[in-house]
Amino acid sequence: MQRSLAPAPVRLVLWDKSTPYDGPDPPLGDLILRDRAVLVGLVMNPDLWFGEAYTTRRLEIRGPLVPVLDALSRSAAAEPSWLTRVSTLFASPNGVRSARRNVQHHYDLGNDFYRLWLDEDMVYTCAYFPTPDAALDEAQRAKLDLVCRKLRLRPEESVIEAGCGWGALALHMAQHYGVRVKAFNVSREQLALARERAAREGLSNRVEFIDDDYRNVRGRFDVFVSVGMLEHVGRAHLGTVAAVLRRCLRRDGGRGLLHFIGRDAPRPVNAWIRRRIFPGSYIPTLAQVSARILAPAGMSVVDVENLRLHYARTLALWADRYTEARDHVRSNLGEDFCRAWELYLAGSEAAFRTGWLQLFQVVFTPRDSLPPYWTRDDPHQALGARGDAM
Amino acid sequence: MQRSLAPAPVRLVLWDKSTPYDGPDPPLGDLILRDRAVLVGLVMNPDLWFGEAYTTRRLEIRGPLVPVLDALSRSAAAEPSWLTRVSTLFASPNGVRSARRNVQHHYDLGNDFYRLWLDEDMVYTCAYFPTPDAALDEAQRAKLDLVCRKLRLRPEESVIEAGCGWGALALHMAQHYGVRVKAFNVSREQLALARERAAREGLSNRVEFIDDDYRNVRGRFDVFVSVGMLEHVGRAHLGTVAAVLRRCLRRDGGRGLLHFIGRDAPRPVNAWIRRRIFPGSYIPTLAQVSARILAPAGMSVVDVENLRLHYARTLALWADRYTEARDHVRSNLGEDFCRAWELYLAGSEAAFRTGWLQLFQVVFTPRDSLPPYWTRDDPHQALGARGDAM
Repeated sequence: MQRSLAPAPVRLVLWDKSTPYDGPDPPLGDLILRDRAVLVGLVMNPDLWFGEAYTTRRLEIRGPLVPVLDALSRSAAAEPSWLTRVSTLFASPNGVRSARRNVQHHYDLGNDFYRLWLDEDMVYTCAYFPTPDAALDEAQRAKLDLVCRKLRLRPEESVIEAGCGWGALALHMAQHYGVRVKAFNVSREQLALARERAAREGLSNRVEFIDDDYRNVRGRFDVFVSVGMLEHVGRAHLGTVAAVLRRCLRRDGGRGLLHFIGRDAPRPVNAWIRRRIFPGSYIPTLAQVSARILAPAGMSVVDVENLRLHYARTLALWADRYTEARDHVRSNLGEDFCRAWELYLAGSEAAFRTGWLQLFQVVFTPRDSLPPYWTRDDPHQALGARGDAM
Repeated sequence: MQRSLAPAPVRLVLWDKSTPYDGPDPPLGDLILRDRAVLVGLVMNPDLWFGEAYTTRRLEIRGPLVPVLDALSRSAAAEPSWLTRVSTLFASPNGVRSARRNVQHHYDLGNDFYRLWLDEDMVYTCAYFPTPDAALDEAQRAKLDLVCRKLRLRPEESVIEAGCGWGALALHMAQHYGVRVKAFNVSREQLALARERAAREGLSNRVEFIDDDYRNVRGRFDVFVSVGMLEHVGRAHLGTVAAVLRRCLRRDGGRGLLHFIGRDAPRPVNAWIRRRIFPGSYIPTLAQVSARILAPAGMSVVDVENLRLHYARTLALWADRYTEARDHVRSNLGEDFCRAWELYLAGSEAAFRTGWLQLFQVVFTPRDSLPPYWTRDDPHQALGARGDAM
């Protein structure tokens, strides 16, 4: 196993002794296994056992968490193990009911919990840092605005948002771009707060928060936007998103944006993440989104931006704030929960840093619609229905 | 057949009479068939017969060429006919020898011919118009520069260019960005002129023009760039491009750009275009490029821009210049050739206007390399090897 860790400068330490290690001295960190069962588990099903054993302190990391996970990620095999592949056969079916249950598992942990470590607008997706040292609050607002500008939103347009979290984007679009939004979500805790905010900001007449599955969207809209929802749809349901897009986006002048965690090549979600953090999740490739959602929906890709380093930075700032709030989280949710979430945040940061995860923003239009602008640099105003700029 | 043309406002006129037409009056244009065989051919194999009959005046279009083709494109079926599908089984294998023959069919028509209607730098790919009314010369230079800036070229870096045309990009990169370029091409006519230019501009020591197939690229380079070559690779050889990328791009800090005509969904190339204009060509989808070239090469997509309206504009300007040079072309190459090229230019413009063809610029890096910039707006300088901006 020490061999399989190489070339990561991480030393394996067993319950009774350390193992031969010939990497850089001193190592970046130690991976400490407390008993034999963990070792066997890691050999048999490393993805699942790493998280399970870390959570319960049967596996510990001595040294800086993110750099050690980063080093382990770099030495990871390009191909997932056979067990990982097989385990995906038992993935959640993500029907309307199980999808709701899966979303609630994560997002209904309590608004108070997320308020401890998210930004002030409670945006739980990748931020956009105009400069790498921008503050989190500023970077999340910059992300909301980036999405609006890429879509060239115009006053009075109708927007459908699939998966709206605590409503920050919906409210931003309505307030700063004058659009009308229907925002779908199946997390009750999130919706309650979102509605409260809309009322407080006087936007209840422009933004409707709807407690329903994205599959039940009805009507035609100028704009479709979804930020951080696609990861929860599941591999088997990518075609369902295509059907929704085809049905609900106006053909002439319509446009959309998908913001999602993506992969370079297909790979199952880490088994531990799927069990403990995001049940029912699947991280699609850009090719899958293109061939299984956009093409069958009759959409053309206009623009793709990969913001993976921005997500690594976002996660680092979340982890800092999480650490500050650790005592509080621990007293409410227990030590195991604390450690699981520390691993989830640090492991995700490492995955974005090392390129195992990507963050794609994809702008698209119906094929026979014009792209929303002549060049990216254009003033932020959409092209007219047929060729203002031609 | 008149029914199948609807909803295009185009009237079908047969050799002996016109057919029932109930579209807008007057129609946008007439489609005139001179004999019964053309009608039968169009029903059986429309893609091939349309071009063949137009070339020989057995089919004529009365009215403005691009708008009529545009209208016909809009009414085209989303799915290609069975005959079109079957005919692709006999597509060129594009081995090293046939690929060379296919390229020479088109690009060795003579530099004098292309000089008649291309821009002064002889760039035979989609231009980039900073504003829609920019001149062609300016727009082609803007495109060359856009490619260099997206790649964040730095002095003394090594660049491989696969398919270099008459050398405009290679020379631009060397002159304005101080890089060293090895540029591959299998068109002798193009290479001869490219070498002459390099000598004239004093760049022969920085730019090497190589008469060889892209598959024979050897060595490791900082940057890989290919503008308008992928369309000639052929569907069966996309994996070969992956192997070349994996082999020749430096893992740490390497980056690349593919500029190519693309599709939303897989579809065979128009049979007439494949026979008369671009033998061996295949227009890939973004998903195919992503899943069959970039993913197996271990590359991450950093940025995608769709410039289809810019290609429509480029083709319109080429067609204008072609029309001015028509008498000259006709006297050298004959009327059939003239008409075939008019149809090719006008049909391509219509396809880019109506979204049947896309123009993608894709920037990518090896997975474990950093993206070349923190944000798109960053000064045009590549990030250092590991995280200047982190």
